[in-house]
Amino acid sequence: GWGLEKSLQPGSDTSSLARFLDGEFCEAKSEIRREISRCALFQSNSYDLTLDQNRDLTAERLSHVLGLPLIKKQLKDQEGQRGFLTKSLGIAELVCAADMATGVKLGVVCGLYGGAINNLGSGEQKTKWYLPVSELEFTGMFAMTERGHGSNVRGILTEARYEPSMQEFVIHTPCEDAQKMYIGNAMKGQYAAVFAQLSVNGEAQGPHCFVVPVRDPHGVLHPGVTVIDMNLLCLLHCVAERKPPQFGNVSADGLYSSPIQSKSSRFNAMLAALTPTRLGLTVQAMAAMKLGLIIAVRYSHSRRQFGPKDQDEVKIIEHQTQYLRLMPHLAAVLALTFTTRYAAGLIDAALYRGEDLQSSRFLQALVAGLKAYSTWENVACLQECRECTGGMGFMMENRIPALKCDSDVFVTFEGDNVVMLQVVVRELMTQYAKQLLSSPVSGLIRTWTSSASDSLRTSFLGITVDKVGDLRFLLKALSYRERVLQRSLVARLHSKVKKNKDEFFGAWNSCLHHVTGLALAHIHRVTLEQFALAIEECQVKDDHALLSKFCLLHGTSLVYQERAWYLEHKYLTPATSRKIRTQLLDLCKSVKDEALKVVSDFNIPACCIQAPIAGVSNPRAEWAFYSQPEAPAVQKTLSKL
Amino acid sequence: GWGLEKSLQPGSDTSSLARFLDGEFCEAKSEIRREISRCALFQSNSYDLTLDQNRDLTAERLSHVLGLPLIKKQLKDQEGQRGFLTKSLGIAELVCAADMATGVKLGVVCGLYGGAINNLGSGEQKTKWYLPVSELEFTGMFAMTERGHGSNVRGILTEARYEPSMQEFVIHTPCEDAQKMYIGNAMKGQYAAVFAQLSVNGEAQGPHCFVVPVRDPHGVLHPGVTVIDMNLLCLLHCVAERKPPQFGNVSADGLYSSPIQSKSSRFNAMLAALTPTRLGLTVQAMAAMKLGLIIAVRYSHSRRQFGPKDQDEVKIIEHQTQYLRLMPHLAAVLALTFTTRYAAGLIDAALYRGEDLQSSRFLQALVAGLKAYSTWENVACLQECRECTGGMGFMMENRIPALKCDSDVFVTFEGDNVVMLQVVVRELMTQYAKQLLSSPVSGLIRTWTSSASDSLRTSFLGITVDKVGDLRFLLKALSYRERVLQRSLVARLHSKVKKNKDEFFGAWNSCLHHVTGLALAHIHRVTLEQFALAIEECQVKDDHALLSKFCLLHGTSLVYQERAWYLEHKYLTPATSRKIRTQLLDLCKSVKDEALKVVSDFNIPACCIQAPIAGVSNPRAEWAFYSQPEAPAVQKTLSKL
Repeated sequence: GWGLEKSLQPGSDTSSLARFLDGEFCEAKSEIRREISRCALFQSNSYDLTLDQNRDLTAERLSHVLGLPLIKKQLKDQEGQRGFLTKSLGIAELVCAADMATGVKLGVVCGLYGGAINNLGSGEQKTKWYLPVSELEFTGMFAMTERGHGSNVRGILTEARYEPSMQEFVIHTPCEDAQKMYIGNAMKGQYAAVFAQLSVNGEAQGPHCFVVPVRDPHGVLHPGVTVIDMNLLCLLHCVAERKPPQFGNVSADGLYSSPIQSKSSRFNAMLAALTPTRLGLTVQAMAAMKLGLIIAVRYSHSRRQFGPKDQDEVKIIEHQTQYLRLMPHLAAVLALTFTTRYAAGLIDAALYRGEDLQSSRFLQALVAGLKAYSTWENVACLQECRECTGGMGFMMENRIPALKCDSDVFVTFEGDNVVMLQVVVRELMTQYAKQLLSSPVSGLIRTWTSSASDSLRTSFLGITVDKVGDLRFLLKALSYRERVLQRSLVARLHSKVKKNKDEFFGAWNSCLHHVTGLALAHIHRVTLEQFALAIEECQVKDDHALLSKFCLLHGTSLVYQERAWYLEHKYLTPATSRKIRTQLLDLCKSVKDEALKVVSDFNIPACCIQAPIAGVSNPRAEWAFYSQPEAPAVQKTLSKL
Repeated sequence: GWGLEKSLQPGSDTSSLARFLDGEFCEAKSEIRREISRCALFQSNSYDLTLDQNRDLTAERLSHVLGLPLIKKQLKDQEGQRGFLTKSLGIAELVCAADMATGVKLGVVCGLYGGAINNLGSGEQKTKWYLPVSELEFTGMFAMTERGHGSNVRGILTEARYEPSMQEFVIHTPCEDAQKMYIGNAMKGQYAAVFAQLSVNGEAQGPHCFVVPVRDPHGVLHPGVTVIDMNLLCLLHCVAERKPPQFGNVSADGLYSSPIQSKSSRFNAMLAALTPTRLGLTVQAMAAMKLGLIIAVRYSHSRRQFGPKDQDEVKIIEHQTQYLRLMPHLAAVLALTFTTRYAAGLIDAALYRGEDLQSSRFLQALVAGLKAYSTWENVACLQECRECTGGMGFMMENRIPALKCDSDVFVTFEGDNVVMLQVVVRELMTQYAKQLLSSPVSGLIRTWTSSASDSLRTSFLGITVDKVGDLRFLLKALSYRERVLQRSLVARLHSKVKKNKDEFFGAWNSCLHHVTGLALAHIHRVTLEQFALAIEECQVKDDHALLSKFCLLHGTSLVYQERAWYLEHKYLTPATSRKIRTQLLDLCKSVKDEALKVVSDFNIPACCIQAPIAGVSNPRAEWAFYSQPEAPAVQKTLSKL
């Protein structure tokens, strides 16, 4: 019933496409799949447990995962391990697919708490505060957000004062707005990475990270710590002490020293250290999207409704609206798979070379943008999956409601998406300003403004309707839009701040809609590029052809979404714009049957899919069972729209 | 703490705008507000109850509501009562605001079950099967959807066979796909309105509605009935008997007779009788949207984040993205308020005149379209409210998650939205075909096709940028789009079916994207028209001015969404399209402070709002409390963007 067989013999029936989608470390992923498939804790949907039962089960699952030999080794050997992040994200995605709460907790303990210690701490601090996590001695939590400051981390109010007489730091919550909130694992963890404003001898040194003991090994809270259960997440109100990790050290007699002089640079360095963890959010969103799409695509190929008079009803995937709603999301999740791999590879390479992530503006922008794009895509994708599966998709038994609920938080968590988009643009602008400074013509900015639309245009008059179906055309269009939006934003800000002497915050705020548009344009372009580049590596002809169709669909869908902008800028003519729509409908129709193969090649164990409507039986919901659909016979006829 | 004071003295501090938004029957609404505010059952958020506790509480709340003198009177006097539907919907919206589950159950018992009996049954049947509901003797449920047939009601498989020897109908579930599903109140109700295929003496008569006893007054199931708990909704598997209500009667000796000869017409008449109930879904969605907006707008005016250097942080409503995300939804909910009132008024007038709703194609299209538009608007609106309130909006204590979950089902429930949009177009097309038949030139259809874009265009070359800010321009634009889409759809279908001899289902399916676009264009146009007409009735100058701004915003937002289409059709030039965007940003900014007044004038009792972030204290979540914001001082300066 639970489909263990397939997952227990990976390799034997794994298709070439599944191996290609797995990428590097496919062996490690197969091992995790086997472990999840054989572990009793992951064999059933936990939708009908109480909150407390659910928390206990999650703790048990987390403990099981942390105890797996592969994962223990991964946590211990991370220093200097080639491809550490790529491998970690591959594992994390599968744990999220098995259970989102466990995956998120793993992210909190290893990514956020662990990342804070590993990236900000000294070697000694890592040994003391992080290695025991891999030995299951204790778990950690991450306390950055406060009641009054979530997005604006620089404004946090929690205080850390050094007491030379006791050689201790006193962490203090001075007011209600300084209460730490939304702390995953707060009802179970022993130590917290707490962010607070450091003051030494009365001098403010800006936000630093401190390891604070929250409860003893028996789960008893330390004196001075108050934890209020927020039901889904928790609130921490703490007064405690511990040595701060690096980017700032205080000698026993109370002298502060830091390798980085400027407070602002120290702050940025601290945030940059969290970049690898932020990429984890994209992986969590991808796990949720893949599950939603497996369920929706399979059910759409099983369930029938309406049809020609006096004939059998047709499968609902045949309805034009149905494939139009689902296929672009499937293309997007493939694009995200390759783009995430690319970003993780860049970070791994930088860390391996011992480079400072802060200096890579492009990488900061990419990861922030991917976080926002992927988590919004996830919300939209799961909503379509839920609607496309009708009443069945609203039933807890079919998993989609829990996936929606668990992953909805991602859009505002670990950096609100609107703030993330501003990070993208801030990084792009800084990079741009650097280019300008190194350019002989520093007044270029005004010149570009006026000529941007001409100098960038790739002779639109020459675009025939045929070219619209060419991937290069789509790539150029996305790139054009990004550059025009960037230059026009620079020009607008320049005009507001330099000419009108507007205050910067007000000027920036009055351009926020433009800013968010630019950030998304940037990330859209990168995802299409990375999708296209990844396909070049695909050696199997059929897989190559299949991925190419999805890549063209992704590009078409991105240009279609922004066709108004292209029409406004006369980059598309009314005729080419209509052609884009027809192409979108055509492509969605042409991949709807192959979608069954793609979702199968996500290679997610049946025990993770859980939904009876996707062919995974559940004795508690026999009424929802539909057998897994067979792949339809290949249709060679050209689609008629 | 619970803010009872205000609601207990309605009238004393009710603003002119609140009274205008209430419309007719404001006295009845005030009475319901008082009853809800004083009833202990509605004083707290039930987010932390178990499923069983929640069900019991809902049953208790429903029983309390049904027992209120105003509601008992309303249920008994419905025959011939002027404005019955308008008044019922006003009451229903407030009950939904107090608790969505109670509101939905009220809709099931009085609207669906009650509607089936009242609209399809004889006088005797009403007395027997419906009046006892108002005396709290029993409650009902509605069993139309089956496992295999939700949207396609015509294809239901449940059988009803007349047994002349016993003078009984035997209702039978012949296969798994015939199981009745998603039945609200199935775990509590005594009688069900069950839809089944009637056969008399072996002759099929099409779907009919039967009243089936499910359990006795002590809650014990009758023999032959199986009920499986679907946790959120339930499944009914029944074998039972009862007389069918009208549109088909069977004499004791087994002769079938019906005033309507054609089976297809009988089917349509049966569905048309459910039209008033369908409008209830729009009202339920409006209640959810209003609550979400009250919470998000108030918190946005309380919470501060980011700001000019060395100054206080600004209220988050000041962020351009924040007001751009919330204000269009506030405009839409106002438009829906007036459009729903209009539709209810038309139905009330028709019923009062004793007219058959089936003959009003326009009304059928309007109600189906409103159902789809409002429930999708609700999903989008609540998602924005949740994101705009950050982590706080994800907390159950702040009500938005439960509102999202409860109202998400509306998009596929009582007619899947994609099917509803097809109903809209089918009705529009039938109306159109009738016009054509009565026209002297029956070949008009092909002529129109070729000249549509010219004959309908209102001389776009003459549109200056200024005109875009004129409501008449926006109304014309929406109307133009609807007519062009309608004529081009007719032309496409004509070409596929008549010229290419395509099978109708395939032809229609290949135009589904066009069909759904037309349906939404239709409903968009009607909402803007009704908003504009309603404002003309507003006598208070300030209210008139305020509503006019929101009406302009609604129109601007609708045209902005479809600006690609207008550019493709050269109805907008690139310059006017950009002007529409600027206008959208300007209008959203200009109403952001007045939004506080509007949400207050929704006049929803504090005990219904519940969210601590909206200023309603909750002793279980003190950490989330923000006082209700004061209205900002009026800014007279023109907004700068």
